[in-house]
Formats: sequence, structure tokens, C-alpha cells
Amino acid sequence: MQHVDVITLGAGGGAYPAAFRLARAGRRVVMVDPKGVMSGNCLAEGCVPSKAVREVAELYRTAQRFERFGLSGEIGADFAGVVAHKDRVQRTRYTQHAAELARLAERLTLVQGVARLQDAYTVVVESEHGEESYRAEHIIIASGSDVFVPPIPGAELCVTSHDLYALDSSFKSLPRRLVVIGGGYIGLETATFLRAFGAEVTVLEMMDQILPGMDPDFVAGLAPLLDPAIRRVTGAKVETIENAADGTLTVRYAVGDKNETGDKTETVAADAVLMAAGRHAVVPEGAEAIGLELQRGRVVADTALRTNLPGLYACGDVNGRVPLFHAAVGQSLIASRNILGGDQALDYFDFGAVPTTIFTLPMAAYVGHTRAALKARGIEALETAYNFAEDSRAQIFDETQGEIRLFFEPGTLRLLGGWIIGIDAGQLVGEIGLAVSKGLTAHDLAAFCDQHPMASEGISKAARALF
Amino acid sequence: MQHVDVITLGAGGGAYPAAFRLARAGRRVVMVDPKGVMSGNCLAEGCVPSKAVREVAELYRTAQRFERFGLSGEIGADFAGVVAHKDRVQRTRYTQHAAELARLAERLTLVQGVARLQDAYTVVVESEHGEESYRAEHIIIASGSDVFVPPIPGAELCVTSHDLYALDSSFKSLPRRLVVIGGGYIGLETATFLRAFGAEVTVLEMMDQILPGMDPDFVAGLAPLLDPAIRRVTGAKVETIENAADGTLTVRYAVGDKNETGDKTETVAADAVLMAAGRHAVVPEGAEAIGLELQRGRVVADTALRTNLPGLYACGDVNGRVPLFHAAVGQSLIASRNILGGDQALDYFDFGAVPTTIFTLPMAAYVGHTRAALKARGIEALETAYNFAEDSRAQIFDETQGEIRLFFEPGTLRLLGGWIIGIDAGQLVGEIGLAVSKGLTAHDLAAFCDQHPMASEGISKAARALF
Amino acid sequence: MQHVDVITLGAGGGAYPAAFRLARAGRRVVMVDPKGVMSGNCLAEGCVPSKAVREVAELYRTAQRFERFGLSGEIGADFAGVVAHKDRVQRTRYTQHAAELARLAERLTLVQGVARLQDAYTVVVESEHGEESYRAEHIIIASGSDVFVPPIPGAELCVTSHDLYALDSSFKSLPRRLVVIGGGYIGLETATFLRAFGAEVTVLEMMDQILPGMDPDFVAGLAPLLDPAIRRVTGAKVETIENAADGTLTVRYAVGDKNETGDKTETVAADAVLMAAGRHAVVPEGAEAIGLELQRGRVVADTALRTNLPGLYACGDVNGRVPLFHAAVGQSLIASRNILGGDQALDYFDFGAVPTTIFTLPMAAYVGHTRAALKARGIEALETAYNFAEDSRAQIFDETQGEIRLFFEPGTLRLLGGWIIGIDAGQLVGEIGLAVSKGLTAHDLAAFCDQHPMASEGISKAARALF
Amino acid sequence: MQHVDVITLGAGGGAYPAAFRLARAGRRVVMVDPKGVMSGNCLAEGCVPSKAVREVAELYRTAQRFERFGLSGEIGADFAGVVAHKDRVQRTRYTQHAAELARLAERLTLVQGVARLQDAYTVVVESEHGEESYRAEHIIIASGSDVFVPPIPGAELCVTSHDLYALDSSFKSLPRRLVVIGGGYIGLETATFLRAFGAEVTVLEMMDQILPGMDPDFVAGLAPLLDPAIRRVTGAKVETIENAADGTLTVRYAVGDKNETGDKTETVAADAVLMAAGRHAVVPEGAEAIGLELQRGRVVADTALRTNLPGLYACGDVNGRVPLFHAAVGQSLIASRNILGGDQALDYFDFGAVPTTIFTLPMAAYVGHTRAALKARGIEALETAYNFAEDSRAQIFDETQGEIRLFFEPGTLRLLGGWIIGIDAGQLVGEIGLAVSKGLTAHDLAAFCDQHPMASEGISKAARALF
Repeated sequence: MQHVDVITLGAGGGAYPAAFRLARAGRRVVMVDPKGVMSGNCLAEGCVPSKAVREVAELYRTAQRFERFGLSGEIGADFAGVVAHKDRVQRTRYTQHAAELARLAERLTLVQGVARLQDAYTVVVESEHGEESYRAEHIIIASGSDVFVPPIPGAELCVTSHDLYALDSSFKSLPRRLVVIGGGYIGLETATFLRAFGAEVTVLEMMDQILPGMDPDFVAGLAPLLDPAIRRVTGAKVETIENAADGTLTVRYAVGDKNETGDKTETVAADAVLMAAGRHAVVPEGAEAIGLELQRGRVVADTALRTNLPGLYACGDVNGRVPLFHAAVGQSLIASRNILGGDQALDYFDFGAVPTTIFTLPMAAYVGHTRAALKARGIEALETAYNFAEDSRAQIFDETQGEIRLFFEPGTLRLLGGWIIGIDAGQLVGEIGLAVSKGLTAHDLAAFCDQHPMASEGISKAARALF
Repeated sequence: MQHVDVITLGAGGGAYPAAFRLARAGRRVVMVDPKGVMSGNCLAEGCVPSKAVREVAELYRTAQRFERFGLSGEIGADFAGVVAHKDRVQRTRYTQHAAELARLAERLTLVQGVARLQDAYTVVVESEHGEESYRAEHIIIASGSDVFVPPIPGAELCVTSHDLYALDSSFKSLPRRLVVIGGGYIGLETATFLRAFGAEVTVLEMMDQILPGMDPDFVAGLAPLLDPAIRRVTGAKVETIENAADGTLTVRYAVGDKNETGDKTETVAADAVLMAAGRHAVVPEGAEAIGLELQRGRVVADTALRTNLPGLYACGDVNGRVPLFHAAVGQSLIASRNILGGDQALDYFDFGAVPTTIFTLPMAAYVGHTRAALKARGIEALETAYNFAEDSRAQIFDETQGEIRLFFEPGTLRLLGGWIIGIDAGQLVGEIGLAVSKGLTAHDLAAFCDQHPMASEGISKAARALF
Repeated sequence: MQHVDVITLGAGGGAYPAAFRLARAGRRVVMVDPKGVMSGNCLAEGCVPSKAVREVAELYRTAQRFERFGLSGEIGADFAGVVAHKDRVQRTRYTQHAAELARLAERLTLVQGVARLQDAYTVVVESEHGEESYRAEHIIIASGSDVFVPPIPGAELCVTSHDLYALDSSFKSLPRRLVVIGGGYIGLETATFLRAFGAEVTVLEMMDQILPGMDPDFVAGLAPLLDPAIRRVTGAKVETIENAADGTLTVRYAVGDKNETGDKTETVAADAVLMAAGRHAVVPEGAEAIGLELQRGRVVADTALRTNLPGLYACGDVNGRVPLFHAAVGQSLIASRNILGGDQALDYFDFGAVPTTIFTLPMAAYVGHTRAALKARGIEALETAYNFAEDSRAQIFDETQGEIRLFFEPGTLRLLGGWIIGIDAGQLVGEIGLAVSKGLTAHDLAAFCDQHPMASEGISKAARALF
Repeated sequence: MQHVDVITLGAGGGAYPAAFRLARAGRRVVMVDPKGVMSGNCLAEGCVPSKAVREVAELYRTAQRFERFGLSGEIGADFAGVVAHKDRVQRTRYTQHAAELARLAERLTLVQGVARLQDAYTVVVESEHGEESYRAEHIIIASGSDVFVPPIPGAELCVTSHDLYALDSSFKSLPRRLVVIGGGYIGLETATFLRAFGAEVTVLEMMDQILPGMDPDFVAGLAPLLDPAIRRVTGAKVETIENAADGTLTVRYAVGDKNETGDKTETVAADAVLMAAGRHAVVPEGAEAIGLELQRGRVVADTALRTNLPGLYACGDVNGRVPLFHAAVGQSLIASRNILGGDQALDYFDFGAVPTTIFTLPMAAYVGHTRAALKARGIEALETAYNFAEDSRAQIFDETQGEIRLFFEPGTLRLLGGWIIGIDAGQLVGEIGLAVSKGLTAHDLAAFCDQHPMASEGISKAARALF
């Protein structure tokens, strides 16, 4: 039995920021992670590698329009080369993380293994060296999430984001025909990347819109900007995946027929099928036994990241509130502060102002509360928009589809939310998100002179439309 | 003599936002501009066309590293094609502006001609149709600035930004050897664009640093990121430009010799010389006669954009306070409000929070007060930085040089200023600039979860380093 | 027919701030008011005179505890003298207002008369000199509110706040027995003042709590601090007021009997009965005819103070949104800006952050959304409180009952509302209200060092309890 | 040798807030104080008891004007009774503090004794029980300040604020003639209190203005509002205090003669002389020996309250930055957070936004930077004011002298500072101070609707004057 101050279950975005801060404060900290490296899914198989692929896909797409800009040349894409680029980025970051960890080695240890909660103070780690117990005053559960594979016959024939994006992945050749099961952001992003490289892509989404759960009007704004060659089927319930001798996969799905009462069944052939039906929280073993409150398979955490058990915190995907890397990091830091405060909160996390970017080609992003959520709360927001058709930068790149849209609270003119569809969405959501986070007003946005000629001009321009 | 409510001298960024707002409020407005089109220098020969060229140059540079990303192909650049792209963007915007103007035609007129101030209420416009007088209750002087050509023998042999960037410019072939007189942002930006397309470039700067007037440490951070093949000579006083029979130009300049007491003279040969020695305010004729207060050749304006004469306002480059398009627009809107308020201010302009981006390859940007300015005010700011070497997005693009640097007021932790050198600088300055504008604190920046994996993560990360 | 730029119907808090600002901006403005003096109900018979009486009542109450402080002496109160004091204050203000008006006389006129809307641009004023028509581009309806007298037999025997508080009122002797019909803030305040001077007071409130419509927990906190000798009957439906030959009035009312099914009838004798059953908006004649949208007898106005008719604005009690003088002033200023903006809004009013003070003895105040309103919106606010029992200043005055209570939004920690019951409530609501208005957070309040030993210390102390 | 987590030197405002927070976080904390009770000078002999006297003096003064309000009666003041009231308030607070301490007794101990720093981790406490050593990871030096008695012959004949305000003080009868040496706020406040009770008062100030060090224009605004019967001599260098057989004291002082080159000497007779020549920091023994950086007799602390020695903090009067109780409390909380953060700052203190109230009769208060300080920084602030002559509440109390004055940064319109002279100053400084602390703007203040008819209306009214 080792005694430490703090244990984190996981070593990703929900864990290491807290671990680092606590170690810097002199606490002895142990991070436990089955992967044995510092990184959550984000680096392992999520945001970082997928964006490495994405940016190449975007360059490749742009290159196809080079003539328009006075450039010339035939551009080819070598998918294995793209994957090698991705691997290089991942390797760089792993090395960097290892160096960061080493600098705090005196007080911070990373243990490879699977953690089990024995009681509210004790964690048992099972590794290749056997079992070891750790006793800590505080535990941060940041065990993340994993790909959810629904119980569909043939599901084992599918690849997942893990297969595509993990370091040294074997998925090195572009499938001619890709079927994506799940039209959430992971599936949809990948669909646009592989489509950019030339694959024929079909996206099957069970719900009645792609990007289910997101504001319907936001989705409706993005959908026409995506490559129309990506076939999208909504309301598609996948029934089986079968493989033929020649390696061809056949995905069979039921889809509602609007003219008839029953569903009809369709099939689509593929060389690869990506299972992107969602993710589920990875709740550590023992959680229920020690009385940790769970809800829909997630650990319940409040705005101070406290669970129902004193001294236990839950950060990141495992609490399911905002399953994004940067949200996990923010939560982790708050948890570290509250641990420093002796389990008496020193700070609280605002789950409502975390930006979400859909890294499709082109991108879209939103933050705060937008039209649908506001209507549901009975708020008739003041809405203003800026159309990229009038934007200098968009015109320069000839990417003039899309908009910036802002939602203000009547009376206070506080910015409640906003979305960007199209150019620079992932960048613009920073300025808009900070404004939502701080409750800045249309006056504030209007008074600031956004840089010309950048797409951010649209933010002040939209705000100024109210006056 | 026509009677109107408001006259603007100029029809660019300092003029038309006010003109539009006032027209929307029912005022009869006349804009007078020698060019006869709605646009200042920005669209005519400034930010927009130069950025149209810039973005192609950047694409071209990136294309040369395509192999690294798994892409392949030989890329060629056709400078005339690049100029055609630029012209297309300009034409799009002129068309758009004309349409905007047409929508308010009932109350807003654009008159082509040169304006002269007869008294504080009367403007005489000289055009090809002769002279016409206008009497107005309020006048907005927004006559902009023009290229400053120093009295150097041979200066007439040089091209200016006008020659390069004006619509349908004749500067259509890339000079093999370019000399740029003036290392300010216009000269330096152009130097990097033409260098990217293959020109041999020399920049001659009279002061002891390129980007004279900017924070020395900021400049020192950017300089090594610029193409080292761009030769930069500081302390260079150009004496003559001469042309030979074969069209070759020779630029002769004196430069201090550190080992000797006197200067020594050097020469550099060029196929084109860009005169980028600065700009001067275009003060309308009659200004002094009617008693308008000028200072160093500019119209003095206060934070309400009022001049010393009641009813007269000065916006944009002509007041010389922040000679940038987006600053002019912001000022123009404030002036319109104060005119609506009956010359009793309804609003004031913050000259201290306007972002400035140096659109070189790569970019750099700053906003607010940075190290040198703060030291000059006796403020020992809390400084934190984020190095792009550790940034995911920078790693993905393999552009890891540069940094985000933030300057906070001790005690209040209010963000006083910041700079970004390198990737996405022009985008990142939006979020940082809004924070400076609103006086947000390190706590505020630290609490916001910037989107991963975007370079804006560095903003929150830098702020979090204080805690 | 006179042509002016703006007409205001009324010359009180909803009218004159706009009139002044517009006149300062050069607009010709006419204010029309039946009273013929600049002031709404606030000065005529509302806040100002009632507070003049209140403060004397409080001094008198405090004087009865002088011994505790080391002071001595018998204090008598002469009610006619108190009224004379009140008259003096009112006279001072009327004089001051007249002087303010005179300074703008060139462009601003006050016309005594009753205004009728003829169309959306024309106002007919009926005065002792006959009828006169005014045509204006913009009209501000700020005709205020009046005492609502319910159709109860004998209602004409009652006095109203007008009789008590108007300048040179004849209500100069303290009634031995006072009955107040209506437990709203006007009735309750007066009840405590006259009780302080020695009257026997009974308050009859129809609804099931005094201060109907206010947060029940707020009311429950204040009720025990009011003089227990004030008899309060809730659920009391007054049926008749009758007077006897000796001048005694008898108020008969039905009140629910909890043990039986029906109501039972009770009576109470009085020397004076104050009718304080509420106020109703004074909608100008012609409003409906010209198509002005009304709702529950009030003119509908949006956050820009616009009615449904272009150019027509409605400010203050007449729109019924926040019927308080300082709210009317704020609205009037916004309306003036929007008129200056050419009926294109330049600003918007936040109806949600206006402080309300109940000027009883002792006071209580609230601002923003408190417990009941938040619950109704589904918000589980973070609540913190400061008990005046621990407050230095409260201890010094021996007024230690009551509390400061703050309501924060979870996550953002933004201050959504707050109340103060007891000492200095009317002062403390300023700091709390500003924080609500700006969306300041618990961090912000906690970081500020409120002055010691003042009751405002409780604000930071309450906020600090969250950390 | 006892081992604890944290030791505080002192148990007053700079110490106990940290001690409490740290104990709540589970740390073992010892407070060492020579007085052996929880309280600094503030409760012992400062703000609390002096305000207890002040408020009675104000009531007594008001009572002398009762006739004006319709009240009547002869009021007497019994100084011993006033002192008894003061004692009662102090006793209440001591009891309350003891109870608060008892609730944390498990982890928090108060030791009576004099502390000496042995090294950066060790404190030796000398008490009646001998010496005891404590070893701690962190030390908060919060040893406060003490009356400074200059080396003037006869100084021992003077009383100090200790003699006046300490619990159970023997100063129970009002001196007929009081001389106050020192026109700082302590001396001046006491001068007005005792004058209110009838003493003849002379204030001798060495510098050329009373309230030396404060903004001259602020002082010039307050001076005429103080009872003119208080004789004030500036530039007065006290030379001796002598006592005669009859107990009469004679204070001899030199004062510059404007017509002659030398000073001239004057005398003033007194029944009591209050020595209020300033306070000096109480630096614990051993400070210099262990290498603690001192400056002008104070422990140097940065905005994180860190001294130059790791783990050692200095809060409150001992660092001399803002020697006020509420500032000490704020600093103490920041220090506690930084200790929790493992001596890596979690928060910083803003020394620039602490309100200061001069509790004279009438009061005055200021916060942030006002005219003189801004001029010294080269800032030409936008100034607006509200005169209490036009204030309803001031008129009600017939206290219409004085003003609210606000100082805004040009351009940003951020509130940099403000002062209030006259009615409710100590309350109004809360709202203004919060605005300074958060950098709110004139727009923000103007948008808020301050409660009518309270003096805080003047805040929004002053801000609105800018628009």
C-alpha cells in the first residue's frame, strides 16, 4: 500500500493538468492509465491525429483550385504519406508530454495499469506486475470514454476511430468506398476527409439529422457546404454488416419510407466501414460498489467537479457533461484547485461556454446557447448574422458560403451564444466563446475593432447591426 | 449651394460607416471623394489587394512543402495570374459596395471630386463638372492618407503600393530583383510576398530596426521567422535611384559603419524599386484657413472624434492616431453617433485597443500596450508566453516558430496587451484584442476553454501559467 | 398646428430625461402634462414626499432608543411639522426642476393640458386655453400611472397617497387609528411611518401575503422586522367603508376562515382609511383608435422602448414593466437615444436589473431574480447570505435583524439577484444591483474589499463564502 | 518544538481570514498575538469602537436639528454613556470572534505571546509561560501597526487612539478643550466626534494640508463641510507639551509665518491632547536577521503577498501598502490561497481599488485614482460630478453640501477612481469601488438605474453626463 496525496484515474486531459498543478504545489501524485502514456483519447486517436489528416485534406482540396489563384500544377495525394504525417505529429507530442512529465518526476508518477476503486480512498492497480494498492486523500476520476460499438451483427468487421487515428495505425490505404455508421461529428469529419482524398462516402445516421443533438438550424446551415458527393442517409437503422469473399462489405439498413407505413431495407457496399455510433464513458471498476453516483453510465459531477463522495472528483468525458478535450482540461484545473482548497471549492466550472468545432471540410463551430436551446428556455434572443459572401477574406479564398450568427439576450444584450459556419470557424469561435464565457454584450463586441481583412470582422459587424 | 445634413470628405473606412448610419437615421448625407467610388485606400491599394496576393504567396510556400504532408506535385506560380486573382477580389468588393450604396440612394449620395473647406459649414467640391458648394450641419473629415514620397533624386523611378495593388495595375510581372525602400509593414509585407514567388529582395530601412516604431522585442521575435534570403539593411539612408539603359535600377544608400566614424555608401541593383517610406495624412484644402487644429500634418481629433471646430469630426488616417482600416470604421461609427447626439457625445473611441497585424509570411500581430510601452509608463507587467513549439496546430503545419505573449497589469491582472508571432497571428489577435478592449483579466482568459487543437489554446495556457 | 421634433405625453421621469437630452441635441421638444409642472407622481405624491416623511419617522424611532447610546431627552413628534418638512423638500425640488427647464427654454417647452393622440404624429392638447394640435416626428408616451380605486361602496371616504403626500396636502394630523387597504409597498410603507408616529394601524391585503407578487421568502424575511403592533390581515376582501356621525369609519371585509368552508366577515374602525389597492397605467386618449398595442391596460413597449407604431415610444409606468421612477428615467434616456438614432435603436433597456426598495421601517430591497423567480425558471442558484447579527454597523445601531442574500448562477457564478432585509437596504442595493446589471460574478464580489465597518462588508463576505 | 502547517504572526484582519480558510482546508494553524484575542487594532482601538462613537455623535448632531423635521425635545449627551455603548459593541464582537474561533478549534489555535522569527520556518513565542518554538511550512506576517509617538518632550502626557477607543477605556469624560496632534484621518475623525459633543478642538498638522497625502482637491472639498469651530493649523511643528499644576496642558508649536522668513511659535491650552501623528508597522523581531526585505520599516510584499523569502507572506498594515482593515482581510485571503497553491500563486491582490472612508462628520470617501494621482501619471481623465445640492435624499436630511465625483479613462471610459464628499459617502463608495475594481465604464454606470430617491442616483447621473 502506497500513500500519496492524489491519484488520478487516467492520464489524459481530465487528469494531467490537475496532476501537474498539484505536483507543482508539492503534492505527491500518481496517475494510473492503461495506456501507460500521458494522453487521453485526444492525442491517442482523437482530435490531434484527425486534425493532422484534416489539414492535409484541406490543403489537397485547395490545391485543386490553384489555377484560380494563379498557381498551377497537378497535385497527388498519397494516403500512406498522410498517415505518416499524422504519426509524426503524434510522436512529437508524445515525446513532448514525456519531457513535461519527467520535469515533475520527483512528485508525479505515471503508472501503467487498470485502476479499480476499492473504497473512497483506495485504488487498486492491476498491471503486468500484479496488483498494487494506493491510498490517497483525493481521487480524480478521469478515465475518459471509449468507442461505443452497438450490438449489430458484423460490427466486428468495422474499423473505429481507433483504427484510423491511433499511432502507427495500419489503416494506410484509402478505401475506394467508405461507409460511416453514425453522422455525429467524428463520423462526419472523417467522411469529409476521406472524401477529399477521393473516396466514395456514405454516412448512415440513425436519427433524423446528421450531427444529432446539435441545433437543427446550425446543422441545416452546414449541410449544404459539405461535399454534395457525400451521400447522407438519416433515419437509417443499420441491421447487419456482411463481408463477401472479395473483401467487399455490405451494410444493410432500414430506413423509413415516407409514403408507406413501414420501413424499407437498403444496402450499401463498402471497402471499409467506420463505426462511429458514439462514445460511452469508461467508469472505473468498483465505482458502484463504493457508492459513487452514476447517471446514464456516467459519473455525476457538479460544477466544482465533486462527485457525491467527499474527496472524489470526476473530470472530462467520464462525467459526460461536455466530452471535449479542452473542457476536460478546464475541469481538471478546477478540480485541482478544489483539492488544494481542502475539498472546499475554490473555483467552479462553467459547462455552458465551451466551444465546439465540427472539423469537417469546411468547418463549423458553436458556443453557448443557440436558437433551439434558447427557444426551449423561452428566450426570444436578438439574432444578428454576418454572411461570408460579403467577407474580404472569404472572397480572397473563394470560400464565401456560410455565416457568423450571434444570439443576444434582450435587454442586457449579453451574448448567449453564437455559431460560425464556414471559413475560419475554429478560430472565430475563440473570440465569440470568450465573449460568451464573460457575458460580454453586443455593445462590447461592437466597440471592438476586429482586424481587417480577417473573417473576425464579421463578429463586430454582426454586433453593430443591432445599433 | 446644396443643403444637406452631413458631408463626409472621403468615402472610405472613416467615412462610409458614418454615412450609412446617418442615412439610415434619416439624415441626408453626401460623401465626396476624388476616386468617385466607395472605398478608401484599403480596398483601392491597401489591405484587401495586398492580402489577396499574400494568401496566394502563402499557399505557394506551403505547396513547396507538400511532400512532408503526403502530397506531391510540382507547383508553378504565374504572377500575372496572381494579379488577376487580386483584381477579381477587388472587383467583387467594388460591386458589393456599389450595391450597398444604391440601397440608401434616397438619402446618401457619392460625389466625385476634390473637396475644399470654405468655412466650418461649407464644402466646395471641384470636379470635372466645375465647382459646387454644399452646406452641412456636420462635416466628417475622412480624407485618408497617401503614399509619402521623400525628395530623393530618382524617386520617380520607383513604384509604390498604388502601382502594385491598384485595380487593373500594370505591375504584372515579377521583378527578378526587388529593392524596397522602407521597412515598415507595407514594405516588409510586400518583400515577403514577392520573395515567396522567387524575387531577390533587399529592404532598406532608415531607422535602426525594421518595423520602426513597433516594440523592439516584438520585432526581434518576428525577424528571424522571415525568409532569411530577404536582405535587410537598417540605418540605410537612400541617396539616389538611377536607371541604366538596360532598365536596371541602382539604389545608392549611406549606411553607418560601426568601425569608422563616417557613413559608407553602398549600392544595390534592382529591376524594380518599391517606395514604401511611409504615408502622410491628406488634409483637405482650406483646413488651416478655417482654423482647424493640425498637428504634424494631421487633423487633431479627440476620443469623441471631434476636432477643435464644433460640428467637424476627423476619422481615420487623417487624424493619424491609428491609421488602420478597422480603426477608421470604428471611429466613423462613433462620429456618426455623436452627430446623432447633436454634437454632444454619445460615445467615445478607444484608440488603445485596436489590433495591428503585420501580414508578412509568416504573420505577427499585437494589440494594446506591450513590453516597451509599458516600461515607458513605469508598469512592470506580469508577462506570460506560449511557445508554438508545443502547439498541436503549429506542429500539424510544421510552423512551430513563434509565440503568444500576454502582458497583464499587476494586481488587477487586467490584460494590457499581447502579441502573437507566427501561426494564425491575424486570427488570434481577435480574441486577445477583445480581451484588451474589455479589460478582461488573466482569470477570465484562464477560465475560458479555448478550442483544441487550435492555436488559441495558447491564450488560455499562457494565462493559466500565472496560477 | 405646431410642428416640433418630439412630443412627450407627461413631464415626469419617463419624459423629461429624454426631453432634456433631445433638446440638448438641438431638437425642439414639447412636454405635455396636466399638472403643468415638471415631475411625475414621484415628486408630486410618491417617492420623494413619502421618503421625506419616512426619514423623520425613522429618526423619531431611533430617538426613542437614545438612552442606549448615551443620549437622553424626551422627543416629541408634531405631525403637521413633519408634513411641513415634506412640503419644503417638494418645494425645493419643484424650484430646481423649473430652473433646469428654464435653461433649455429655447428648445423645450412644457405645456399644461391633457393630451389626446389624433394619429401617430399628432397630439391634441386640451387646456384651459382650448385645444391646440402638435405634429411631431416622434412621440414619447410617458403618461404614468394613477391610484387605482376599486369599486367598493364607501371608497370615496378613503384617502389616497395623493392626499397624504401631495404638496400642501391637507392631511396634517395623525389619525389615531389608520386602516390601510392594500399591503403593497405603498400601503405598507405608510403603515410603518404612521405607526412610528403612534397611530394604531391595520393593513388589509386581499392576496395571501403582504407585498403580493414579491418573492415569498423575501417577504417572509421582512415581515417579522416590521413593528409587530401593525396588524396585518391577508386574504381580506374589503366590502364596504362606512362612516358614522362622529367621523369614525368602519371597514368591513371578508376573510377566509381556515376551519370552515365559507368566508367570515370582520370589521375594523378607523379615523382614516388609506386606499392603496394598486395603481393603473394612464393610457392617453386616442391610443386605441390610432392602433397602439395595449395589454392589460398598458402600452406595450419592447426593450428599445418602441411601441408597435413607428416613432412612438412608451416609457415608465404607462408600459407597466417596472413601475419605478428610476426605471422610468433609464427608459426615457434609452428612448431619447433611439429617437436620435432615427428610430433605429442605438440602445436597449434591461428591465431585469432595476433595484426595488421597500422603504418600510426598516427597509428591504431586492434586484434581479431571486429564489422564487429562479426556481420558476428551473435554475438551482448558488445562494449565500450574510446575517446582520454579525455586522459591525448593525451592532453599532443595534439593528441586527435581517440579512443580505445573493443568488449566483451555477458554473458562471454570475450574480443573478439579491436581496437585503434590514439596515441600509436602500444603499446596499446599489452595489448589488450594479453587479447584477453587469453580470459580475462571485469572484468579482469576493475580490473587492468592501469598506469596513459598513454593512456592505456583508456583500463580499457572502460572496467569499462560496470559496 | 511544535510542527504546524501555518503560523500567523498576529490575529487581526491580516491573519485570521487566512487562518480560518486554511483550517477549513484541513491545515493546522497557529495564530500568535500579544493581545491573546482574535482582533487587530481595528476592533481593539480602531474602526469599530471609533465608529460606535461616531454614529452617536452624528445622531446627537442631527437631534440638534430635530425642530426642522417636525420633531422636538432637548437632547443631552453623556460621554460616559457613549463610551459604554462603544464598549458594548466591542464586547459583542469579541464574543462573536471567540465563538468563530471555537468552531475551528480542532485545527486552529490562538496563542498569546510575542513572536520572534528564528529562521524562515521557525517562530519562537515568548509568553508568560516562557518560550515555545513552532515550525511551519508557511508563515503569514500580519503583525499590524501601532501608534507612532514622535520624540517630542511631553509626548507621554498625550492620549492616543488606544486610550480613547480600547475596550473599557478610562477616557470617559469629555475634555473641555482638546488638542489633536496630527490631522490625518484618525485625528480628524476624533476631532469631529468630540467637537459634536461640545469640546473645543484644535488640530495641529505638520504638513501643509489636513489629511496629508490625500488628493488636495478632495481635501479641499471636505474641509469646509467640517464644523468650522474646529480650529485647524497646518504647517504646525509641535515642540513641547507641558502640564500645569491644574492639569492644563500647553502645546507649543512652531508655525511658518508667511510674511517673515522664520517660523513663529504659538501655544494652545488643552485638557487633553490626542497624539495622532501616524502609525508605524510592527515588524516582528528577527525579521532582519533572517533576511526579510524591509523598506521604510515595512515588510515588502508583492501582489501575491509574498515576501522575498519563500513561504513567508506579509499581509495588512505590516506591509504598509493599504493600511486598512478591509484591505488586510482581502490580502489575508489571497495569501491563504497562495499557501494552498503550494506557494505558487493562485491569486493576486489589487492594491489600487480599496475604498478609503474618512469617517468625519460628515464623511468623505474615495477609491482608485483621483485627480492628483491621475495627473501625476499623465492621464487627463474625463471628470463628471453630481452635486448633493440637487439630491433628493440630501435635501430630505438637509445635508446638501458635497458631491460625487468620478474619473474616467479617456477612450475606454473605464472608471479609474472616484470620491464622495458628504452624505452617505461610506455607503456610496461601495458601488463606486466595485466599479473601479472591475474596470466598469461610464456606459455601465449610466445603464444602471440607481435607486430613487437615494444618493446613489448621483452615480448614474454623473456617468450619464458624459453622454
